[in-house]
Amino acid sequence: MIYDNETFFGEYAKMSRSTQGLAGAGEWHQLEGLMPDMAGKAVLDLGCGYGWHCGYALDHGAVRVLGIDASEKMLAAAEQRNPGPTYRLCGLEEYEYPAEQWDAVVSNLVLHYVADLADIFHKIHRTLKPGGVLVFNIEHPVFTAGVREDWIYDREGRPQCWPVDDYYIEGPRQTVFLGCQVEKQHHTLQTIVMGLLKAGFTLEALEEARPSAEMLPLMPEEQKRPMMLLIRGRK
Amino acid sequence: MIYDNETFFGEYAKMSRSTQGLAGAGEWHQLEGLMPDMAGKAVLDLGCGYGWHCGYALDHGAVRVLGIDASEKMLAAAEQRNPGPTYRLCGLEEYEYPAEQWDAVVSNLVLHYVADLADIFHKIHRTLKPGGVLVFNIEHPVFTAGVREDWIYDREGRPQCWPVDDYYIEGPRQTVFLGCQVEKQHHTLQTIVMGLLKAGFTLEALEEARPSAEMLPLMPEEQKRPMMLLIRGRK
Repeated sequence: MIYDNETFFGEYAKMSRSTQGLAGAGEWHQLEGLMPDMAGKAVLDLGCGYGWHCGYALDHGAVRVLGIDASEKMLAAAEQRNPGPTYRLCGLEEYEYPAEQWDAVVSNLVLHYVADLADIFHKIHRTLKPGGVLVFNIEHPVFTAGVREDWIYDREGRPQCWPVDDYYIEGPRQTVFLGCQVEKQHHTLQTIVMGLLKAGFTLEALEEARPSAEMLPLMPEEQKRPMMLLIRGRK
Repeated sequence: MIYDNETFFGEYAKMSRSTQGLAGAGEWHQLEGLMPDMAGKAVLDLGCGYGWHCGYALDHGAVRVLGIDASEKMLAAAEQRNPGPTYRLCGLEEYEYPAEQWDAVVSNLVLHYVADLADIFHKIHRTLKPGGVLVFNIEHPVFTAGVREDWIYDREGRPQCWPVDDYYIEGPRQTVFLGCQVEKQHHTLQTIVMGLLKAGFTLEALEEARPSAEMLPLMPEEQKRPMMLLIRGRK
């Protein structure tokens, strides 16, 4: 569990999304727009990390919030920073997905660690009530199909363009993230979208994260290639 | 109209999709799977080219088939190779899209020449009967966001990886296709999918063209990056 690695966890703690919460996440201004009404709802967060999205659900009127995560350190941070929801040490593959329990399932930047997306989508569909909503954010296929998930740089060391290779070869990709070797799963766009549709979801929104006008000057390279895919589906 | 340019038209005529028709098109084995039942149906083909898809509709029982195209040369070729449907010299932006006229609208590799996709999707939605189907194939955003739409090559001159740049800057891209300067329109994935949903379509399928097992050895680089996006939406 890379998120329990000391070095990784220490570096993760320094990211703006960790120190500032949702406001420090470049994609939040879009992801928030996809969130369903939380008032009176039961909300499950798959891979809750620091618990920011669980806290958001609670703040917006959710009456039952469960965050699961496979990292003990993350859950300890969640209890501290976003107390209130129920947190449980459990991986996405281990959760039992009881039938028709949740009004909303949220998953932020976790599904690119999951090898069998179709299976997870089926289980999420099962655990949602009829009319329930799944909102997730996953690393974009253009990003996970990157060559060592890194730029081609110009002579001054600035990002020049983003190389894509072996797009149709799905499965594990070794990358370096926060100074650690991290294995992610590359899925094609077709696998993501058709996995969702075949599980029985209706696609309601598909967006590609791009920084807000205020954040763009701080990360101009984010104009060059899409890094995240934001999706809302309804049962 | 580049398709009426002598050089371009001459080169286009040599492509396997021109000499062999649908069987010579690398994406047909997937596109055919998205085609709706044509029996007794009224079918509109936007940018019909040589008329292969119009011919297919007629062969599969369509009772009314109209192919429109902005190129005179293409329509002359269509009349010769796929006689039977009605062909009309008309661009996609000029067609009047009469309300609830068609059971199916097909468009193959044309929409990446259209600047305002949202507008065309609205018009297509209007001209479809309730329950009608739109099937289209458009150059993939990864492809149109390519740097000069070309590979980075290795020392032996073989395609190594596909560079992506300025992904979020939509609009015209100058490319070289069949020896001619051709202007295409780059749209993000979000623009394509949300354009469709906002026009009122339900997304039924989204696929990325990859060569069949027989064709792959002839075009191994097609494993490296996605070139086309195939979509089916229903009114």
